[in-house]
Amino acid sequence: MSFNVTILGSGAALPTAKRATTAQYIECNNRYILIDCGEGTQNQIRKFGLKLQKISHILISHLHGDHFFGLPGLLSTMNLLGRNQGITVYGHPELETLIRGMLEVGKNKMTFNVDFVPLQYKDEQVIFEDKIITISSFPLKHRIETCGFKIQEKPKEFQLDSEAIKNSGLLIQHYPLLKKGENIQLENGEIRNFEDYTFPPKASHSYAFCSDTKPYQPLIPSITNVDVLYHEATFTEADVERAKTTFHSTAKQAASIAKTAKVKKLILGHFSTRYENTEVHLSEAKTIFENTICAEDGLIVNLEKL
Amino acid sequence: MSFNVTILGSGAALPTAKRATTAQYIECNNRYILIDCGEGTQNQIRKFGLKLQKISHILISHLHGDHFFGLPGLLSTMNLLGRNQGITVYGHPELETLIRGMLEVGKNKMTFNVDFVPLQYKDEQVIFEDKIITISSFPLKHRIETCGFKIQEKPKEFQLDSEAIKNSGLLIQHYPLLKKGENIQLENGEIRNFEDYTFPPKASHSYAFCSDTKPYQPLIPSITNVDVLYHEATFTEADVERAKTTFHSTAKQAASIAKTAKVKKLILGHFSTRYENTEVHLSEAKTIFENTICAEDGLIVNLEKL
Repeated sequence: MSFNVTILGSGAALPTAKRATTAQYIECNNRYILIDCGEGTQNQIRKFGLKLQKISHILISHLHGDHFFGLPGLLSTMNLLGRNQGITVYGHPELETLIRGMLEVGKNKMTFNVDFVPLQYKDEQVIFEDKIITISSFPLKHRIETCGFKIQEKPKEFQLDSEAIKNSGLLIQHYPLLKKGENIQLENGEIRNFEDYTFPPKASHSYAFCSDTKPYQPLIPSITNVDVLYHEATFTEADVERAKTTFHSTAKQAASIAKTAKVKKLILGHFSTRYENTEVHLSEAKTIFENTICAEDGLIVNLEKL
Repeated sequence: MSFNVTILGSGAALPTAKRATTAQYIECNNRYILIDCGEGTQNQIRKFGLKLQKISHILISHLHGDHFFGLPGLLSTMNLLGRNQGITVYGHPELETLIRGMLEVGKNKMTFNVDFVPLQYKDEQVIFEDKIITISSFPLKHRIETCGFKIQEKPKEFQLDSEAIKNSGLLIQHYPLLKKGENIQLENGEIRNFEDYTFPPKASHSYAFCSDTKPYQPLIPSITNVDVLYHEATFTEADVERAKTTFHSTAKQAASIAKTAKVKKLILGHFSTRYENTEVHLSEAKTIFENTICAEDGLIVNLEKL
C-alpha cells in the first residue's frame, strides 16, 4: 500500500527558477496519475527521479497555459521513448483538438493511443475507477471552466489474523472470503465469524486538488474529510481584492475551506511570483487551520504517514 | 556594434538536464531575435540572464515539437509581464492556427500583437530587413518542410579619419556623406575624395542556422562565406545510416558542408541523447573542418571576436 503526492510545480502562471508551473505526480497503489501539466513538467518528472512512462492517467484542471502547456512535450517524449501503453487524458472538451494539432503537425507516428475524456463542469462525477481507487472531478470557480480532482482509495480488505486462523480448521481457500468480511461455513456445518479471524481494514486515504479557484463553498461536499487537500493560495490577505478580481484565493480563504471541509492536512500552492517567500501565506492560513504546509517543488507527501 | 549568439538548447528531440531542446538567442546591433523555441525556452532565457521582452522576431525552422513547443508559454509570459510591443513570428503556415488556439482557449486578453509571417520552402528569401540587418530563410531537407535562417549585417559605413579631416575645410554636415562613401564638393568648387578622409568600413558579419536537415548541397549558396554556421550534427559516423533514415546529419557531414561553403567557424549542435559526450562528434568533424566547436547550453559566440 502506498499513496504519495509529489509536487512538481508550485508556482502560479509565471515559472521561476524556484517554482515551476502547476503539475503533480501521484502514485497510489501502483496507479500513476499526473494532475496538470505546465510547461516543463517532463523536466520536473526527470529531475525528481519519477517514472514518466508509468503515468496512465492525466487530469487537466483547466485550459490556462500554466496548467497544460507541457502536455504536447510530455506526450512527444513518451512517444520518442517507444511507449506502447495507452494513456487517458481528462480535460476540457477543447483540449483534444489543441493537443492533437500540436502533435500531428510534425507527422511523427504515435506509438501509443491517447484517449481524451471530456470533463463536465456541473457536478461531481466519477471519471475513473478500478478495484483499488476512484478518481472524481468536481467544479471549481475560476475565470474559465475548471475542475478539481479527488483520488480515493476504495475500502480496503480485512487483514487476516494468522494466529487466530492457526488450527482453526479454516482453509486457504477461505482467506479471500474472510478478507471481504464474509463468514465461513465449514464442511461440518460450523459457522466461523470473520471478525474472529481478521483485523479491521487499514484506513483508506483520499487526496483532493483544487486549483485554480476562488473560495467556493459548493465544493465543500466533494472534499469533506479528505486526508490531504491541496488548495491554491495565489495571494495573501494584503491582496484579497486582487484575488477576488482574478478568481483566485488567499491562503486564509483556502484555510477556511479546509476547516469547513474537515480535512486532515492542507497544502497551499500556486503562489504568485510577487511574494519572495510563503511565510505570510503560512501564518495567515494557520490562524484558521493549523495543519497547513506550503508546497515547494519536489515536496513529497505520503498519505500513509500523516 | 555587437553580434552575439547564445545557445539556449543544444539537444535533439529529448530534453535532458544538460541539454534543452533547440533555441538560440541572437543579439545583433540591438536587434533581438529568437531562433526556434523548444519547450522551456523561456526558462533558458531567464537562466542565462537574457532579456525576454527585447525579442522582436521569432524564427521557427519547422514544426517538430522540440523546435516550437515552448512558443505558447513564451508568448503567455510576455503577456503576463505586460508587454505592449508587437512581435513577429516567422514559421510554417500552419503555425499560426496552432499557437493562437493554445493562447486563445484560456481567454486571457493579449496586451500585444503577434504577427505570423508564413515561410515558403522553395528558395532563399529575405524575410526581414532594416538599415542594419537582413534576415533570410532558405530550404533545408528534413522529414517535413524546414527552413534554415541567415542573419547578416548590412555593409557598414566608412569610418571617419579625424586626423585627416582636421583643418581640411570639411564641415560636420559632410560627415554623413563621407561615411556613405560619397565625395564632397566644397563651396569653392574643390572636390574632396572620401577615401582620403575615411578608413574602410568594419567587416559585416553573418550567421547561419541549419537544423534540422540531412546534408543538403543546395543550401551551400545560402551559407557561403558566413562567419559562423550552426549546423545540426545529431549523430556520429557510427550512426550514419540512422542519420540517413531520419533526415539528420552526422558531425562529419556537417563539417563537409562547412568546408564547401567556406564558412569561418562551425558550431555543431542538436546532439542525440544516445551519446554521453560530444568528443567523437568533434574529432570526426575536425578531420574535415578544423575550426569547429560543439554547442553547449549557455555557449555565447561573439561574431565580433572570432
